[in-house]
Amino acid sequence: MDKRTPIKLLHEHIDSEVLIKGWVDVRRDQGKMIFFDFRDYSGVVQGVVLPKSEALEVAKDIKTEFVVAVKAKVNKRPEKNINADAKNGDIELEILHIDILAEAESLPFDMSDTGYNLDLTTELDHRALALRHPRLQAIFKVQSVIIDSFREFMKSQDFMEFQAPAITPATAEGGAEVFEVEYFDKKAYLTQSPQLYKQVVMTAFERVFSVNKVFRAEPSATTRHLTEIVSLDAEFGFIDSWRDVRDMSEETVRYILQDVATRCSDELKFLGAELPTMIDETPTLSLTEVQEKIFAETGKDVRGEKDLNPEDERTICEIIKKETNSDFVYVYGYPTREKPFYVYPNPETPEFNEGMDLLCRGIEWLSGGRRINNYKQLMEHVEKWGMEPGKISMFLEAFKYGAPPEGGFAFGAERMTMQILGLKNIREACMFPRDMNRIDVSLNKTDDENTIH
Amino acid sequence: MDKRTPIKLLHEHIDSEVLIKGWVDVRRDQGKMIFFDFRDYSGVVQGVVLPKSEALEVAKDIKTEFVVAVKAKVNKRPEKNINADAKNGDIELEILHIDILAEAESLPFDMSDTGYNLDLTTELDHRALALRHPRLQAIFKVQSVIIDSFREFMKSQDFMEFQAPAITPATAEGGAEVFEVEYFDKKAYLTQSPQLYKQVVMTAFERVFSVNKVFRAEPSATTRHLTEIVSLDAEFGFIDSWRDVRDMSEETVRYILQDVATRCSDELKFLGAELPTMIDETPTLSLTEVQEKIFAETGKDVRGEKDLNPEDERTICEIIKKETNSDFVYVYGYPTREKPFYVYPNPETPEFNEGMDLLCRGIEWLSGGRRINNYKQLMEHVEKWGMEPGKISMFLEAFKYGAPPEGGFAFGAERMTMQILGLKNIREACMFPRDMNRIDVSLNKTDDENTIH
Repeated sequence: MDKRTPIKLLHEHIDSEVLIKGWVDVRRDQGKMIFFDFRDYSGVVQGVVLPKSEALEVAKDIKTEFVVAVKAKVNKRPEKNINADAKNGDIELEILHIDILAEAESLPFDMSDTGYNLDLTTELDHRALALRHPRLQAIFKVQSVIIDSFREFMKSQDFMEFQAPAITPATAEGGAEVFEVEYFDKKAYLTQSPQLYKQVVMTAFERVFSVNKVFRAEPSATTRHLTEIVSLDAEFGFIDSWRDVRDMSEETVRYILQDVATRCSDELKFLGAELPTMIDETPTLSLTEVQEKIFAETGKDVRGEKDLNPEDERTICEIIKKETNSDFVYVYGYPTREKPFYVYPNPETPEFNEGMDLLCRGIEWLSGGRRINNYKQLMEHVEKWGMEPGKISMFLEAFKYGAPPEGGFAFGAERMTMQILGLKNIREACMFPRDMNRIDVSLNKTDDENTIH
Repeated sequence: MDKRTPIKLLHEHIDSEVLIKGWVDVRRDQGKMIFFDFRDYSGVVQGVVLPKSEALEVAKDIKTEFVVAVKAKVNKRPEKNINADAKNGDIELEILHIDILAEAESLPFDMSDTGYNLDLTTELDHRALALRHPRLQAIFKVQSVIIDSFREFMKSQDFMEFQAPAITPATAEGGAEVFEVEYFDKKAYLTQSPQLYKQVVMTAFERVFSVNKVFRAEPSATTRHLTEIVSLDAEFGFIDSWRDVRDMSEETVRYILQDVATRCSDELKFLGAELPTMIDETPTLSLTEVQEKIFAETGKDVRGEKDLNPEDERTICEIIKKETNSDFVYVYGYPTREKPFYVYPNPETPEFNEGMDLLCRGIEWLSGGRRINNYKQLMEHVEKWGMEPGKISMFLEAFKYGAPPEGGFAFGAERMTMQILGLKNIREACMFPRDMNRIDVSLNKTDDENTIH
């Protein structure tokens, strides 16, 4: 009995004595008896200290979040006490002995409520403790599964993982939203996207993916933006058209949704999250078709606009949902000159490109499309777009020496977590969210105010 | 026949016509006949254009690294032409038709030689192209397996993956080797280690791992250091002593070595790499014991020194190899005051800690140990070490509210790749290596010199 039993395996030890180790999740003092819920990495279980137990003295001092080692007998609960909704609702530990491994000070807020009652500022000001809250536990388990299932699907399709760099040299595309790094006596920048790197690696390994950080110096604190996010990227060669990219991205999202449904059923239930519906073939419209449809359905004339604005995105998602029951819709064919130089122009209507976005429930989930692989065409675009070739010389070399027709896609892990779970603020979908006002602690407080006392 | 067959599946199509797509790996013109090796993501195969083939005209123009679609018949080779060493050495494509999908300019260096004959500067100056070299292809496949098998093992042990941040607030431990980021109107820093974050996340999820970038502003260009590396980290609670951490790390390394041996046998063979030997129980010595042993075996007296220097590391590895045939050795018990504040002091001899390193073939592979989990003891160390509590308030909060006895370990993916494969320079083990002189391009050249022409 010196060996610890994970809580998830207690069912294998009914009527036996076990040793469990974990945190005190809940304490309910009923005078003569004391009830506890114990929590470890694998689950939660209820235990009781009976009136004559030698553990009673120690139990009296134990508060929530104390860390304990508990010797107990695993009992089946009588029929009337079974809680069918809880995972170990049919067993109870009869506590024989408790060792306190670590004490906890009184909590600054109530953690025992399974409903969500923390405001976001409290949650962020007490991030370390809040991560123990069942709601946050569920969110970050789902996120780890989203990222894991992305990789699993990519591996199943023979994509090779690579590590995209975070530090980049003089930025190719410029832009104000780049973080500058003091790099010895030079300047460097934090990457905004592994785009050019994944295209380079594609020319060597053909089918590649990466899970890496990207950074945006977003100068406003919105509910949808962070300065540091996890980008899930894929790129592959030998496509016939952008439709192959669309199909691969659709299969990827479908796989992730199914995997989350299977592996996170408890978490989804707890969070009250309903996964979006992906039908057999996600509706796929050109930007022009979307604009025509919005006009026909709502009378609002956005025909000829260069892009969809947030309201248009919500509108087209609502229309498609009504028409097909799909929560998803692909939009492709954006004005070529409005998008980056590497996006492939449609050969038949070169003023529109073969870029695409996947929208879901009114918001963009994923972007991608076909890229230019012909070196001559690429150099023409470099010139037309006013790029400096010297700043992207490695990228251009990859295409100078033979690159197949290719494309790829990318999406953010936090955005997808937020959208799948219906969270209101992207900070809820990031363990350690960074924005212009906060890096772990509020940047507008002094160190002293951030100190715990 | 419109559907592409991956080269690895050609054996399923002997005597049939197939369509393959890929790069021209090698071209051998024999006048009447032209031989090609084709390469795709899945393998390499030889093809021949026979004298009367309609493909002959096109074949004449095709050079190395052209991207092609090839219609061909899959033939078994006659016995005498079989190359038992090559994967498709028993088949050959009889080429019927070739479409050129993309051309390639003449290569700046020879890529066809399977021996390694690039100097490192050329390899780095032409990184995009060099990634197609069979040596680099092999190295980065092994690296992807190292990282993947780390995650697979951690998942099998019920560890949850989390994303550690790259941007950090005012540095806790200070130090000159930190990159500074212009963070809006404030200063932020690139993380040197996810150490404090993984301990925080451990207090919430108990068993956690991460694969994330860490950064060191290493002001010298050595063969062993990069400014940006991939750190593989694990942390877990409810250990009895640092020995549990040692055991988990040993199992992790053993799993990775076995996985690399199985999944990368071709690559190891090609690179001539011999995996290090890990015996059933890796020898484990305290720093003091190591110093005594070095003295006894070599007469060199390093007893009482605060750490092992590089020569000592080589010496102890050689001694252990001779004694036990183990390429690995654990060293534990370093002087407490020489190491960070969070390392757990041995309760019996508090001047030595429960930190440990795993050395292999003369170099440190992995570091870890037990950490302080008792809040009072932690605060004492914070004071003794002269830390500012306000700069690590989130970390301290995690331990204020109950944390189990715990520990963990970390190692760098590039260092392990380098060591497993016996590479001479860590830049060979990183796709896009960053050092003080180079971020993709040499920082001492002008943009114009870095431009490709």
